[in-house]
Amino acid sequence: MPILVQKFGGTSVANAEKIRRAAGRAIEAKKRGNQVVVVASARGQQTDELIADAKEVHPNPPKRELDMLLSTGEQQTVSLLAMAIDAMGHKAISFTGAQVKIMTDDSYTKARIQSIGADVIRGKLDDGYIVIVAGFQGMEAGGNITTLGRGGSDTSAVALAAAMGADFCEIYTDVDGVYTADPRIYKKAVKMKQISYDEILELASLGAGVMHSRSIEFGKKYNVTIHVRSSMNNNEGTYITHEVPLLEGILVSGATIQKDLAKITLNSVDNKPGNAARIFEHLAAAKVVVNDIIQTEISADKANVSFTVGKSDLLTAQEAIEKIRKGVHCDSVFVRENIAEVSVVGVGMRSHYGVANMMFKALADLKINIEAITTSEIRISCLVDIKDAIKAYETVCDAFELDKTVEKRNQPK
Amino acid sequence: MPILVQKFGGTSVANAEKIRRAAGRAIEAKKRGNQVVVVASARGQQTDELIADAKEVHPNPPKRELDMLLSTGEQQTVSLLAMAIDAMGHKAISFTGAQVKIMTDDSYTKARIQSIGADVIRGKLDDGYIVIVAGFQGMEAGGNITTLGRGGSDTSAVALAAAMGADFCEIYTDVDGVYTADPRIYKKAVKMKQISYDEILELASLGAGVMHSRSIEFGKKYNVTIHVRSSMNNNEGTYITHEVPLLEGILVSGATIQKDLAKITLNSVDNKPGNAARIFEHLAAAKVVVNDIIQTEISADKANVSFTVGKSDLLTAQEAIEKIRKGVHCDSVFVRENIAEVSVVGVGMRSHYGVANMMFKALADLKINIEAITTSEIRISCLVDIKDAIKAYETVCDAFELDKTVEKRNQPK
Repeated sequence: MPILVQKFGGTSVANAEKIRRAAGRAIEAKKRGNQVVVVASARGQQTDELIADAKEVHPNPPKRELDMLLSTGEQQTVSLLAMAIDAMGHKAISFTGAQVKIMTDDSYTKARIQSIGADVIRGKLDDGYIVIVAGFQGMEAGGNITTLGRGGSDTSAVALAAAMGADFCEIYTDVDGVYTADPRIYKKAVKMKQISYDEILELASLGAGVMHSRSIEFGKKYNVTIHVRSSMNNNEGTYITHEVPLLEGILVSGATIQKDLAKITLNSVDNKPGNAARIFEHLAAAKVVVNDIIQTEISADKANVSFTVGKSDLLTAQEAIEKIRKGVHCDSVFVRENIAEVSVVGVGMRSHYGVANMMFKALADLKINIEAITTSEIRISCLVDIKDAIKAYETVCDAFELDKTVEKRNQPK
Repeated sequence: MPILVQKFGGTSVANAEKIRRAAGRAIEAKKRGNQVVVVASARGQQTDELIADAKEVHPNPPKRELDMLLSTGEQQTVSLLAMAIDAMGHKAISFTGAQVKIMTDDSYTKARIQSIGADVIRGKLDDGYIVIVAGFQGMEAGGNITTLGRGGSDTSAVALAAAMGADFCEIYTDVDGVYTADPRIYKKAVKMKQISYDEILELASLGAGVMHSRSIEFGKKYNVTIHVRSSMNNNEGTYITHEVPLLEGILVSGATIQKDLAKITLNSVDNKPGNAARIFEHLAAAKVVVNDIIQTEISADKANVSFTVGKSDLLTAQEAIEKIRKGVHCDSVFVRENIAEVSVVGVGMRSHYGVANMMFKALADLKINIEAITTSEIRISCLVDIKDAIKAYETVCDAFELDKTVEKRNQPK
């Protein structure tokens, strides 16, 4: 009998009615002939509420104890889900991460899964149970409870699918799949049927926020097809898979936009080994999240170093930079506020030339100035002024026909 | 270094401020030279809220899953307590019942502790930690989480004290000890310095509700002195101990009153083996809590069977009785509503005559009629009409000088 893993996020189990709906889905999947493993997150905003409780007694709660606290959220959900399934006349049993031996390292609050003991789960599946496992949590070798960090339930689900030899992992969420572009901005965006692990990783790191990156890495490594879909309807969502010919052929799978960025440029930095490390070490210590970094030599021993940060981090970043300037010489610091980043992502770039050109031309046609450019193997990002951001995003989406499903595009396939 | 176990009930950890106060107490005890183990209950009304959550998805939640759910309440408290102690600059570590191997049978929702592995706790105590253990919960042999039933945290605490070889277990609660009588009714009641395990067991079963009975049994069996005291001040509370000469000498330690009772009498029941079992089996099946039972032969083959129930159970009890009458013949059923039970408890009854007489005389002096009498080795209970209840209680308390501490009484010591 095939094994199916279903994961329900916090919004999909936020109240009794939604818990019953999730229970109903698990039962349907079982009736269709699957052995079903369910992974669940904490209900609604509970994790945030527990963090607030912790902050009330400790400004910086010890991480081991924080994990002890936060893991209760998922434990509550899984027991309630098991009850709901029982109430509908089917056998169900819930487990904590520790009980099914989801073993992790001891990096509390951001632990990494090392192994999963599939025996307990397999035994209960063979006895006809729907098995419900608390997401987001595991146990380190000493028996202490760990958590996997934000979005960790996705990782639990895909890792469990891998450990159980499941072909599919369904991620139920409050969106009905992955879109070619942000539908709130580019109204013509369409839902993708498929996307590759590499592409979704780029999209995720650009703030598309559909799936936890580590879960995608698990899926890629262990060959688990991930199906992102809505918990509110029965529509097919988006399958995240290895690259398939259909995907390889197209130029661009999706486009993202990040607004509220600021760019900081350090002019004429001494181009000595260790200077870059020193700069970004200080920023990391100040907990500034740095997006793109651009460094270019301007002479034999001088370089300009630029990077973007979220606008909310700008002040902290500037303070950190002032400290850096005591150790790392630079002529001046230039801050550009109010910029946005428009990116396109696609594995097709690997085999097709001219993708960058298409993007630059689309922007040039509207006389939109490009402030900076960065690229990866499957991504091109352009920084533009915030006043041009929406226009830039729409024209790029149009240029790559992101309003059409893959089959209907006129580009090389 | 002596080991001290401190237990904080739900009201003593209901919010951040109270958690900090409990943390402060644990630290003080450590500074006084103890190794400190803290046992905590779920915060405030949380257990009730979780039960309500469960009822929303299942009218009669499976007990294994209910324990999985309810055990999260205590887990949250212990991690928050550990954080609070850390914030005050002392080392603390929290554990679930499972993590410190509180092994129970598999009677979910009312499991009994079978053994406790003291090694983990001892190791952390020796490393200088204050160790905080989730009360109310354990683990059965298969690794499933169990709970010990209402008030189970008391049992966890005393059992841990026994397992760790602690001489004392402090129970912090919202009352400042055990009183000779209910101070809401008998204003002159005084706090007892000491009371024996046997006496508090009788008082508990009579509704005084200070401590969970099973915890007292543990204390008695393993020689743990229990100190019931207030979490709001530093006053000495009441020590629950084995009998000591001081206690043995006095006639009566305390008095209780239970109002809102009803008495049901079955007249002329066939006095055949098995009839009593049949009657009370039916009442138990209907979940009627039966207090006292009085059976007297009225002829060679007939008996009258009386018992008291809470007024709220009266209708259910009467329905059960009607069913019983099909199988167990009786001439008539007589129901006496609106009665109360006044009881006195004291180990001194074992060695002093005339205690019953003192009680009956006190009631007779006020012309209060006694509807029924039951006794145990260390208890005498009289049923009286509800209209006489307060008066009866007060006069009995006066008769046994329950307004005075033991040392000041004029009775034989």
